[in-house]
Amino acid sequence: MIQGIGAAAGVAIGKAFVLPTWEWDVPDRRMESVDLAKEFERLYEGIRTSKTEIEFMKNEIKETVGVAESNIFDAHIAILEDPVFMSEIRGIIERQYKAAEVAVKEAIDHFVTMFDLLDDEYMKERALDIKDVGNRLLKHLLGTPDITLPSDTQPYILVARELSPSQLVHLNPQRVLGMVTIAGGKTSHSAIMARALGIPLVSGLEDSLTEIFKTGDLLVIDGDEGAIFLNPDHVIIDQYTAIAERQRRRKEQLQLLATVDPVTKDNVRMKLAGNISSVKDLELTFKYGAEGVGLFRTEFLYMDRLGFPSEEEQFEVYRQIAERMGEHSVVIRTLDIGGDKQLEYFTIPEEENPVLGFRAIRISLDNKEIFKTQLMAILRASAYGNVKILYPMISSLEEVRKAKEILQEAKQELTARGIAYDDNVPIGAMIEVPAAVAIADLLAQEVDFFSIGTNDLVQYVLAVDRMNEKIAHMYHPFHPAVLRMLRQTVIAAKEAGIPISVCGELASDERALPIWLYLGVSNLSMSSQSLLRVKHRILNIYASESRELGAHCYRLSTSTEVEAELVRYLGTEVR
Amino acid sequence: MIQGIGAAAGVAIGKAFVLPTWEWDVPDRRMESVDLAKEFERLYEGIRTSKTEIEFMKNEIKETVGVAESNIFDAHIAILEDPVFMSEIRGIIERQYKAAEVAVKEAIDHFVTMFDLLDDEYMKERALDIKDVGNRLLKHLLGTPDITLPSDTQPYILVARELSPSQLVHLNPQRVLGMVTIAGGKTSHSAIMARALGIPLVSGLEDSLTEIFKTGDLLVIDGDEGAIFLNPDHVIIDQYTAIAERQRRRKEQLQLLATVDPVTKDNVRMKLAGNISSVKDLELTFKYGAEGVGLFRTEFLYMDRLGFPSEEEQFEVYRQIAERMGEHSVVIRTLDIGGDKQLEYFTIPEEENPVLGFRAIRISLDNKEIFKTQLMAILRASAYGNVKILYPMISSLEEVRKAKEILQEAKQELTARGIAYDDNVPIGAMIEVPAAVAIADLLAQEVDFFSIGTNDLVQYVLAVDRMNEKIAHMYHPFHPAVLRMLRQTVIAAKEAGIPISVCGELASDERALPIWLYLGVSNLSMSSQSLLRVKHRILNIYASESRELGAHCYRLSTSTEVEAELVRYLGTEVR
Repeated sequence: MIQGIGAAAGVAIGKAFVLPTWEWDVPDRRMESVDLAKEFERLYEGIRTSKTEIEFMKNEIKETVGVAESNIFDAHIAILEDPVFMSEIRGIIERQYKAAEVAVKEAIDHFVTMFDLLDDEYMKERALDIKDVGNRLLKHLLGTPDITLPSDTQPYILVARELSPSQLVHLNPQRVLGMVTIAGGKTSHSAIMARALGIPLVSGLEDSLTEIFKTGDLLVIDGDEGAIFLNPDHVIIDQYTAIAERQRRRKEQLQLLATVDPVTKDNVRMKLAGNISSVKDLELTFKYGAEGVGLFRTEFLYMDRLGFPSEEEQFEVYRQIAERMGEHSVVIRTLDIGGDKQLEYFTIPEEENPVLGFRAIRISLDNKEIFKTQLMAILRASAYGNVKILYPMISSLEEVRKAKEILQEAKQELTARGIAYDDNVPIGAMIEVPAAVAIADLLAQEVDFFSIGTNDLVQYVLAVDRMNEKIAHMYHPFHPAVLRMLRQTVIAAKEAGIPISVCGELASDERALPIWLYLGVSNLSMSSQSLLRVKHRILNIYASESRELGAHCYRLSTSTEVEAELVRYLGTEVR
Repeated sequence: MIQGIGAAAGVAIGKAFVLPTWEWDVPDRRMESVDLAKEFERLYEGIRTSKTEIEFMKNEIKETVGVAESNIFDAHIAILEDPVFMSEIRGIIERQYKAAEVAVKEAIDHFVTMFDLLDDEYMKERALDIKDVGNRLLKHLLGTPDITLPSDTQPYILVARELSPSQLVHLNPQRVLGMVTIAGGKTSHSAIMARALGIPLVSGLEDSLTEIFKTGDLLVIDGDEGAIFLNPDHVIIDQYTAIAERQRRRKEQLQLLATVDPVTKDNVRMKLAGNISSVKDLELTFKYGAEGVGLFRTEFLYMDRLGFPSEEEQFEVYRQIAERMGEHSVVIRTLDIGGDKQLEYFTIPEEENPVLGFRAIRISLDNKEIFKTQLMAILRASAYGNVKILYPMISSLEEVRKAKEILQEAKQELTARGIAYDDNVPIGAMIEVPAAVAIADLLAQEVDFFSIGTNDLVQYVLAVDRMNEKIAHMYHPFHPAVLRMLRQTVIAAKEAGIPISVCGELASDERALPIWLYLGVSNLSMSSQSLLRVKHRILNIYASESRELGAHCYRLSTSTEVEAELVRYLGTEVR
């Protein structure tokens, strides 16, 4: 057995396909006749083609995997536009009369060496990006074909030194059973994409192991434990075949629950809605039994474009979703960019702490026309189905009031244009900033519903950026401070008589069910992938017992204690 | 009158001294004999000399202005170590056989042009840094003297296109009455340093005005309003002379209050302590009447060194301060780095959101030996005076407990070594993370006192990085959510019977006095500069009236309303 890092969960059994290293042999050559203009033209042509290709891959990933993952490619485009990198390449052409591909190769080597020397994980990842982009550019300059993956129909386990995003994008998840990479860890691009694609991945092997795998070897990999078995005996194969089979069967059984109501054993009815990012997500969320959409992230509509979407374009999307709701409803969250989400055509000046920066409702209120356009599109859709509007990142009454004023203007404008809308469309506030919790009683007087965004809330309450590896272990959604702030929010909503739901990741964490039952929160909204798992759990617990446990958790004083109690209750099978 | 931006407050009247632009005439020359080694040696020698000089200036600024301001020079040293900038210079020498100074000049021009092209304030500031560092390097390569400021004894108003930190550092605040710069704004390096030095500054004039000022012109500048009067008539001169005189007299009168107790008109006694960063600050804080030190920021001891300070070195400093306390006490905060504060010899990997990152107690608990060394040094000092220990950025009970365990080990080690310490040295928690407020009742059971750090608390509660210009206007210390969290903290402290003080900037904000009086907080700790101003205000208000107003503020629902009430009460003379 070879021990690595379990970077994406799941078990895979199959033949290895070892990917050759993607290295280019670039003969050092000077321009035949010194024609700088021609050489620059070659370079720019290569850059243009590379950009088009990257944009294409970005779109593919966005469709097949997700928006967040597709953003990896923005870094690649940025490299092709980086003035320092480009001036280095131009300099070599200009001063040494070298051919464009030689200049590119030398510039890559220069920067990769430089970044690799720095003892910094982040810079090493950047070095990989530069290599990836540079190789793409070389490919276009040299006319060498893409590395081809095996094209026979046999699925395989892919083995590589490292996988670049551009290589990953060409993977067919139906054909790749699992992956092994020497480089990388839990947070590498490959790991993020492997998890999103649901492909088991073991990474972070010792360098000396590069040569050990051969195409055709039989591999068993365990992405949970980070274990790899090379040409194992039948005992191991049988054992893991059984595990893989169990995983497959569990999936099938869960699917049977899609049409079952989420009710505890003692008949307490919960309601599970879906979080979606596009019309395309709708079918999947309904397939997994969502009762409406608890969170429609509209950012998607604004991405990969040259400018803001028109009212008409947005309306078309919102209407389609509204019409599909039937008896259910869709909560449309207004534009939530900033932080780590950027639009190409709306640049936010670089921020030292983007998470505490110009984001979400702050941007909308600062760009009234853009905001009003979105509100008009949503209002128009409200004539076609049950629509609610949710404002992200509310931290004061003033913000809600300003947003309401603009909504009022949008209504007046639609009325003037003779267009129908639901005048009583409910408006809600995301509760994700500590300030919103502290004044939840005041906010509850101003809005029709609350939706708790646990991800940001936990982050702000604990002052922990969970994307920061160095302190990610301190991100404790079950911290007593978080529990108390959740309770304060729920009490404010109940006292004001407005509905409350949870749409952050904690909604899909089974361990949190006793907390929700104790607090009396019955509306949870989550990604499609989590719906059936959470429902299965709800069907197997008693609300009475859960509530008692929830109450008990509120008497504990550390997150360690709370987590231990919740895990003990649910048994070991918690994700 | 010429209208600019008021970048540093105050009025100045005097003769203009117009600084010539700092531009170098570098003749394009190749090496006489191609001796790369010699030319590189010249370059490296220039870099070494430049670094030494920058380090020297950094220390000067640190002594005369402050640690934060001195950090500007770190950016300059970083440029001299930047691999991209350096490889550009080396490349020009190596490939074009140009002299070192020509290569430096070309590299500066290249990067400055590139950064200036970017439509980004931050990058433009970086361009100015590169120009500044590059010019210093050129000076050493060419042997040209520093630009000299007028050396006669007449004070003057300095006028320049832009002022670099290295130029500012050579200013004698006694001789520079005020400053005018064409470039820059409220947040430029010049503005930060001008404010710290107490020199009025008007910036951000139209480019066309560059030629308008001549050395010897009579100028009146108003740094509050951003107004400049060029050769004004005697009406203006008389008017501003009166203002300047009033400002001077007010300063003198305030100094008389140093020995007066801070007591409201109806005899409620407050206690004002000083925030200090070094032994040197002690005299100033006592001069302005501080009753002890409410916050000793120990970061200072760790900066501008090659490695962590030894127990002995730290002890020496803590002992000196402890001995100076007399009947008063000093609260020593353990190392609070991370966020925007870095040590050269302890690198924290680049963070997306440093303010939500690896900081303060998190670093200490993760580096137990470094932490224990500091605790032992503090414990030893506790034998020489009234010392308290404060842990920064506490967000959970576990952290306090771990810190206590390490303190216990430190005590045992000292006992084993036969060294005296105060076994009952009080330990306190900074309350600055929302989580600490939410569990303040639990924390109050674990520590001997609370100290509220309002700067970070407001930042986290509102999710607003106040250093971010785009949203700085949302940083509202009087937001109802903040007020409520302050109350929650005070109640927890009072119920547990432990003392509480405030050491963030809000402690020095006169508008907050009604809030402190209402909450029953009487210990405030602030910078030396604020002590007399706040004391003057305390001497002129009634506690009874203030408390009523404080209570009223707690019934308001927006920061705008709260601020309006507080300002109305204190009159217009609020800073």
